[in-house]
Amino acid sequence: MTAVDLIEKKRDGGTLSEAEIGWLIKNYTSGSVTDYQMSAMLMAAFIRGFDEAELFAWTEAMLHSGDVLDLSAVEMPKIDKHSTGGVGDKVSIPLAPMVAACGIAVPMMSGRGLGHTGGTLDKLETIPGFTTGLDPDTFARILSDTGLVLAGQSSTLVPADRKLYALRDATGTVPSIPLIASSIMSKKLAEDLDGLVLDIKVGEGAFMENQDDAHELADTMVGIGRTYELEVVALLTLMDTPLGREVGNANEIAESIAVLAGGGPDDLVEVTYALGSEMLQLAKLAGDDETARGQLRAAIDSGSAMHKFAEVIEAQGGDPRVLDDPGLLPKARYQEDLPAPSSGFVTVCDALKVGLAAMRLGAGRERKEDRIDPAVGITILAKPGDPVDAGQPLARLSFNDEGRLAMARPLLEQAFQVAAVPAARPPMILGEVRS
Amino acid sequence: MTAVDLIEKKRDGGTLSEAEIGWLIKNYTSGSVTDYQMSAMLMAAFIRGFDEAELFAWTEAMLHSGDVLDLSAVEMPKIDKHSTGGVGDKVSIPLAPMVAACGIAVPMMSGRGLGHTGGTLDKLETIPGFTTGLDPDTFARILSDTGLVLAGQSSTLVPADRKLYALRDATGTVPSIPLIASSIMSKKLAEDLDGLVLDIKVGEGAFMENQDDAHELADTMVGIGRTYELEVVALLTLMDTPLGREVGNANEIAESIAVLAGGGPDDLVEVTYALGSEMLQLAKLAGDDETARGQLRAAIDSGSAMHKFAEVIEAQGGDPRVLDDPGLLPKARYQEDLPAPSSGFVTVCDALKVGLAAMRLGAGRERKEDRIDPAVGITILAKPGDPVDAGQPLARLSFNDEGRLAMARPLLEQAFQVAAVPAARPPMILGEVRS
Repeated sequence: MTAVDLIEKKRDGGTLSEAEIGWLIKNYTSGSVTDYQMSAMLMAAFIRGFDEAELFAWTEAMLHSGDVLDLSAVEMPKIDKHSTGGVGDKVSIPLAPMVAACGIAVPMMSGRGLGHTGGTLDKLETIPGFTTGLDPDTFARILSDTGLVLAGQSSTLVPADRKLYALRDATGTVPSIPLIASSIMSKKLAEDLDGLVLDIKVGEGAFMENQDDAHELADTMVGIGRTYELEVVALLTLMDTPLGREVGNANEIAESIAVLAGGGPDDLVEVTYALGSEMLQLAKLAGDDETARGQLRAAIDSGSAMHKFAEVIEAQGGDPRVLDDPGLLPKARYQEDLPAPSSGFVTVCDALKVGLAAMRLGAGRERKEDRIDPAVGITILAKPGDPVDAGQPLARLSFNDEGRLAMARPLLEQAFQVAAVPAARPPMILGEVRS
Repeated sequence: MTAVDLIEKKRDGGTLSEAEIGWLIKNYTSGSVTDYQMSAMLMAAFIRGFDEAELFAWTEAMLHSGDVLDLSAVEMPKIDKHSTGGVGDKVSIPLAPMVAACGIAVPMMSGRGLGHTGGTLDKLETIPGFTTGLDPDTFARILSDTGLVLAGQSSTLVPADRKLYALRDATGTVPSIPLIASSIMSKKLAEDLDGLVLDIKVGEGAFMENQDDAHELADTMVGIGRTYELEVVALLTLMDTPLGREVGNANEIAESIAVLAGGGPDDLVEVTYALGSEMLQLAKLAGDDETARGQLRAAIDSGSAMHKFAEVIEAQGGDPRVLDDPGLLPKARYQEDLPAPSSGFVTVCDALKVGLAAMRLGAGRERKEDRIDPAVGITILAKPGDPVDAGQPLARLSFNDEGRLAMARPLLEQAFQVAAVPAARPPMILGEVRS
C-alpha cells in the first residue's frame, strides 16, 4: 500500500477500504505520509465524496489517532454541546454553567476563532487569569469537582484532526460535509460522552449556507453517533445575523454574564434554552421540554448557574469578580457609532460581513498565527426588525487602532440594510435531527 | 489573491484567469505557495480540467518561470523529438545522430527513467565517460560544433516544471492531459526550436493506454505549439510490447548502435525512420517522406550517422570506441533464460510487465532517489508473432543480484502469452496530428 495508490483510487472515484483509511491516517499522523500527499487526497475526497463506510472508517481512524478520555470516574451524565460556529455565537459560555447547575457534567473542549467566526477559548481568556490549556488530569479533576470544565482541545486527543484541520484550512478543503462531520465527531467521541447536542448554524455567517446542506451535515453526524451508540441531537439554528448584540471577545463575555443574570438578547436566550433543554433531556434529568426549561430558568433565578460559572472560573485560575463587575474585562480605548443612512426598519444585518468587520478590528484572526485584541468588537444596536430613525446608531465599533477602524467600518456599513417596510424574520430554530 | 482563493475556484469547477495562473506558478516557483497547496490545486485541476485559455496560461507561466535558451547563433534548423515514454524506447539515441548527419541541429534535453519506463540520460551515461549535465554555454557550443547535443534538462530552464513534476509524481496527479501537455511543451518551447516531432506512445506500456486519450494529448500539444508559431507533428505509435529487443540501459545503447550500423529490429527501425522523416520535412530538408527516408538511409549507409554519434560522444567526454566495440559497455555478471511454456506463437509480450521486471532487476527506479544498475536488463528473444517451440527461450534476464532476479522473473513470466494461433498485430504507427 502506498499513499499514491490510495490517492489515485479516490481521484478516480473509487472507494477506500477500512484498512486503507486506517493506514493513511496512521501514517499521516506519524508523518510518513506527507502534507502534500494528504492535501491531494483531501481534494480528491472533497470532490469525489465518501460513502457511509468510508466516513465511519475515517472517523474511527481519526478517533484512534491519539488518546481517548476516560471520564468513568465522573458520576454525573456527561453531555457536551458543539456549535459549527457563527458570528456572535457565545452560547456555550452561559449554557455550560446553566446545565451544570442542573446536574450535568460538561467536559467542554472548544476552539479558537478563525476568519469571520469567533472562538470560545479566545472569549474565555479575556477573563483575567483564566487558563484554557489544561492537562488531562486537571481537566478530569475540575470536571469532577465542579461538573464543568471549559478547555482547549488536548494535544493528545485526535492529533490527526489537529494536523488535518490546519492542512484543510490552507488548501481549500474545509467545507466538505464528510470531512467536517468526521472532524467534529472524532473529537467529541474522544471525550467519553453520554450524549451530545449539536448546534448546526445555517445562513450567510455559517459554513452551511442553506438548510439542505445543514440537514445533510446533521444527518451525517447523528449517523456517526449512532454507530458509536452515542445519542446525538442536532438543532439547525439561524445564522444570517449575529447572535445577540455583541461580536468580539470581552464584550461577548459581558453579554454571556447578562444571560446568566437573567437578561440578554432574546435570540441568544432562545437558542441557549433550546440547546439546554435538549441536554437535560438527553441526560434524563428532564422528561420533556417544559420541565427542562423550568429547570434552566430556576438555575438562572436561584443564581446557581452564575455560581457554577464563578466556580469554574476560579478552578481555571480566573478572577470571578468579573461576574459582578464586567468593567474588569479588557476595554477598547475608542468607540465610534455607525448611523442609520435613512429612517425605516433594519431588514438585513449580515452576519458574515459583521464577522469580517470584527476580524478587521482585531477581534479575530485572518491567519491562525495572528494575535487577537481581546478588547475590540462590534455592538449591534439595531437588529433586523428594529425601527430606526435616520442618523440613529445601527452599531458601535470599539477599537484601539484607527487603521483597523478604517478597514472595518466600510464592511460594517455594507452589512446593514434599512427599508421602509420590515421584512419577515424566519424562526431561530429551523429544524432538528435526532438519533 | 491567495492560494486558497484560487484552489477553491478550481475545486468548484471555475476557470482561472491568466493573471491568477501566472501568480500561482510564480509564487510556487519561489516557494511562497507551498507544496501542499499546489498538490490540492493539481488534484482539483486533474479532476475539473483546464479550458484552452487556462492551458495556454499555465504553459506560458511555466515557460517563463526560468530562462529560455537563445540558440539564434545556430544556423541549421533546430528540430527536437520528444517521446511520452515507453519500454525499450531508445529511438532518440540512433535518431538524433541520423537527422544531425542530414543537416538538422538537435538540441535534445532528455530525462531519467522512473517506474517501468527508461530514460535516455541513464542509457547514454552507460557509455564510459559520457556526461549529460552541461551548462548552457557548453550545451550551445556542442550544438553549434556538432549539430547535436544530448543533455539533461538545465536547472535554469522551466524550474516550475521540475518542482511540479516531482510533486505530481508523489501525489497521483501525473496522467492528466493538460498537465502532461503543458509540462512537455513548456520545456520544448524553452529550447528555442524551429520544429518539434512528438512520439505519443499508446498502449499498456505508455501513459496513454488508448488511442482517444493519445489523440487528445497530441491535439493539445499541437494546439499549444500553434499559439507559439512552433510547427509540431505528433505521431501516435504502438507501445503494447517493448520497442526493439533490448530493455535496460547499456543493452539499449548496443541496440541503438546496431541501428546506426544499418541493422536493428524492424519495429525500432520503423519508428526511427518515421520520426526522422517528419523531422527532415519540418526542417525543409526534404520535400516528402520518400526523399526524407532516402536521406536517412544514406546517412546510415555512408557511415555519417555513426560518425555524428562518435563526434557527440567525444564532445560530451565519452569514449567513442564503444561504437566499434560494444563490449566496452557495462556487462551483467549472470544471465538466465525464460523458456516458452508451450509451442505455438507469442501473442503477448506486455510492455508494462517487462518494464517493471527490468526495474526490479535494477535497470529502472521505483523512486526518484534510487540508483540504477547500468548493466542489467532484459533481452526479448521472441516477440509477438514469432513462432516458438516449448522450452525455447522467450527472453534473457541479465542480472547482478539473485534477489533481484527472484523478484523480476515471475513478472517477466506473466508478461508473455503463447498460443496455438498467431494474433494479428496492429501497425506501429497508429495515427498522426499536425499543426
